[in-house]
Amino acid sequence: MKRFLTPDDIGSFSKALEDARNAKNNPYADQALGRNKTLLLLFFNSSLRTRLSSQRAGFNLGMNVIVMDINKDGWQLETEFGVVMNGDKPEHIREAVPVMGRYCDIIGVRSFAKFENKEEDYSEKILNQFIELSGVPVISLESATRHPLQAFADLFTIEEYKTVERPKVVLTWAPHPKALPQAVPNSFVEWMKVANVDLVVTHPKGYDLAPEFMDGVKYEPDQRKAFEGADFIYAKNWASYSDYGKILSTDRSWTVDEEKMALTNNAKFMHCLPVRRNMIVTDGVIESPNSIVIDEAANRVVSAQVVLKRMLQYIAEEEDL
Amino acid sequence: MKRFLTPDDIGSFSKALEDARNAKNNPYADQALGRNKTLLLLFFNSSLRTRLSSQRAGFNLGMNVIVMDINKDGWQLETEFGVVMNGDKPEHIREAVPVMGRYCDIIGVRSFAKFENKEEDYSEKILNQFIELSGVPVISLESATRHPLQAFADLFTIEEYKTVERPKVVLTWAPHPKALPQAVPNSFVEWMKVANVDLVVTHPKGYDLAPEFMDGVKYEPDQRKAFEGADFIYAKNWASYSDYGKILSTDRSWTVDEEKMALTNNAKFMHCLPVRRNMIVTDGVIESPNSIVIDEAANRVVSAQVVLKRMLQYIAEEEDL
Amino acid sequence: MKRFLTPDDIGSFSKALEDARNAKNNPYADQALGRNKTLLLLFFNSSLRTRLSSQRAGFNLGMNVIVMDINKDGWQLETEFGVVMNGDKPEHIREAVPVMGRYCDIIGVRSFAKFENKEEDYSEKILNQFIELSGVPVISLESATRHPLQAFADLFTIEEYKTVERPKVVLTWAPHPKALPQAVPNSFVEWMKVANVDLVVTHPKGYDLAPEFMDGVKYEPDQRKAFEGADFIYAKNWASYSDYGKILSTDRSWTVDEEKMALTNNAKFMHCLPVRRNMIVTDGVIESPNSIVIDEAANRVVSAQVVLKRMLQYIAEEEDL
Repeated sequence: MKRFLTPDDIGSFSKALEDARNAKNNPYADQALGRNKTLLLLFFNSSLRTRLSSQRAGFNLGMNVIVMDINKDGWQLETEFGVVMNGDKPEHIREAVPVMGRYCDIIGVRSFAKFENKEEDYSEKILNQFIELSGVPVISLESATRHPLQAFADLFTIEEYKTVERPKVVLTWAPHPKALPQAVPNSFVEWMKVANVDLVVTHPKGYDLAPEFMDGVKYEPDQRKAFEGADFIYAKNWASYSDYGKILSTDRSWTVDEEKMALTNNAKFMHCLPVRRNMIVTDGVIESPNSIVIDEAANRVVSAQVVLKRMLQYIAEEEDL
Repeated sequence: MKRFLTPDDIGSFSKALEDARNAKNNPYADQALGRNKTLLLLFFNSSLRTRLSSQRAGFNLGMNVIVMDINKDGWQLETEFGVVMNGDKPEHIREAVPVMGRYCDIIGVRSFAKFENKEEDYSEKILNQFIELSGVPVISLESATRHPLQAFADLFTIEEYKTVERPKVVLTWAPHPKALPQAVPNSFVEWMKVANVDLVVTHPKGYDLAPEFMDGVKYEPDQRKAFEGADFIYAKNWASYSDYGKILSTDRSWTVDEEKMALTNNAKFMHCLPVRRNMIVTDGVIESPNSIVIDEAANRVVSAQVVLKRMLQYIAEEEDL
Repeated sequence: MKRFLTPDDIGSFSKALEDARNAKNNPYADQALGRNKTLLLLFFNSSLRTRLSSQRAGFNLGMNVIVMDINKDGWQLETEFGVVMNGDKPEHIREAVPVMGRYCDIIGVRSFAKFENKEEDYSEKILNQFIELSGVPVISLESATRHPLQAFADLFTIEEYKTVERPKVVLTWAPHPKALPQAVPNSFVEWMKVANVDLVVTHPKGYDLAPEFMDGVKYEPDQRKAFEGADFIYAKNWASYSDYGKILSTDRSWTVDEEKMALTNNAKFMHCLPVRRNMIVTDGVIESPNSIVIDEAANRVVSAQVVLKRMLQYIAEEEDL
């Protein structure tokens, strides 16, 4: 694997889930693969789970791990081509990225949507320059439009907790005081469309995800109706795609609470975290026995480890040539 | 050991000192214990010695170490229960801490007194949430009321340098331009009360430590009198406990200088560092042969290593069950 | 090797280049030397290449590596002697440095010229306190007047790419919007004077380097004339030495472009990076096949590894005594 961004990159889900079970049950089995390999985790934005779980996954595989907050530890990178660089950005991404690729064997990049330009965000401009220029395998640690390590962990968590062959999974928008990217819901929908689940998305008017993600997905405007019979409730806020990056509602009647959870089929509650309590979800729901957010977060090590292992295998094959 | 905050957590001092000697003489002997274990060092406040010495101790034990400045690398954590999280804190400590416990095997936490609320500080509110919620062993890397790794290193340093069976140890307040927490003097007193030393505390009016620490400790208001016959002078500034968090004096007649050191029994000079020269202590005293502040700081690796080793042993026993 | 600042510290260049080839071809051969040794990389200033390449070099040698941004992760250090420390600097360098030396086996320090005081910068005041006080081997990771890891990597890169026994190497000043230290050109000149190359320096009036560096070096005021027949063009901006720290020119007629490169003997283009495109060099030149800036940057791992290995050998010899 040279790139990890979409479900296509992981291939067969049944194989991926089998790999995930193996990584979870036997986390230190593949350290020979990671020996003398260095993982660079590069953050344009803050992180807690991704930072810690990706480091742990690298350690489990015997890798050396370097974490770098590029804007704080280094400096701002110019991403436009052809400009006279006499401003506040001392280095061009076209030098910085190939250099990083010479120091490290795998690069993970977190670079959120900036909400300045929809086309630029949805072209994954930053991440794609790493893929194009670094010369090494690249993982999205949440990029402008996707958060695939989260979606893979979510898939595995649902697999672990499901009690029926094909569970009903509801992605529900919920209110939040700040404008959040669509990366998590985009990836969640993208992965659930391929998974053996019955996916329903519910959100207020104006919060449709981009058509390339929502095509073919069941939409239910009535949140309560959507919750009926659900096996998993996946809550998340996102800003508007059509009115790009805008907050159209902070309506707390969309907050996931005990009364709505009672409509479900004893559903498990999921969220990628960090979560705003009493905005996204009530204290009562997130602290209930049906909340599996901590186990879901713990599976971030598993998804990262499966992806890193496949990249290390790719590197080993290349070295053999 | 599941928790390291007070002398009770370390148990027998003679056993702890024996462990410290072993760790110092043979620092790499226990790497099998730390293999594939990850130590998370989490800082809500800045650090130099604690950051470096705890990393080194983890390395000596064969551990992987992750350092995280939560406010800079991650984000601010909400610590109140029941609030509507629509402000500037995107994550609740009740999610963040259990998640960290799933990524790491031992957590060290630095979280200073905030001087906003005495009861809150003295309840060790932040540290105790880590102890309660993380599911893994937790070390105070200086929390609101205690700095036990420092006190243990101090105990060991005194043991190494003492020339009499029961030395006279003087804790003296000294002036400082900023309000400093009581954590270091609290722990120092708490440990010295158990140790085989003759402890005397001297400070200006209004600087009594909390009663639970000072109970049964000899107090001498006259600094010069306190210094007479002392074998160790331990200098430290702290803000008032009774007038909580306030600076009542910056009187430089309390600065430790050569003339006062001459009153002692050729005492060694100690300080936890960082130290404000010519406020806490003169250049002459801290650069004198009797100053043992660097050896004292070096012993921070030793105290951290003893504590980490015991926690790794606890983990190994749990895994065996 | 106890110190790495000047060419004298590395000794014979032919031996150093042989070591560099070995490190490049067989990067993991010396891990026994680095086992249980800790490298501290201490940054007073930002870094990308140095931060990553030095970590990688340490990993290659089996070392543990700690990165610390002293001003952000720790606090500001007082460097003046005899002051009353009642301001914003809570620790003196005379305590901080020996303590670091007790926690780590080798220290790398980045501390740029401050352009406040020429004598202070050119005395390498900060770096020399680490050399004097730390008790361990010290590497300049670019200090006030020199960047020797860069110069050593440059030497090795020229050795790899040269097609004649004694190539013509041109160091050319180029414009930049901010005042930059002289460390890189100083070290480049200092190393090239010893190397088997024909060195020519070209720059506008007022940009002479310090006499101790320029003594005996060929200076050509006409940039185009300097470029004639060159095998390597090494571009770099620096602020004035005589009018210390000032920008005397931002004249973009000094930018390295295709037309000037055509005057050379099909020269390779070099720069230490980060580089301001279309100020220092045009997009066309830096993206041309003759640009070797990425390979040059990659060799930073090699130069760091040679230096670290020699320091580890020094430590091993000391331990044997």
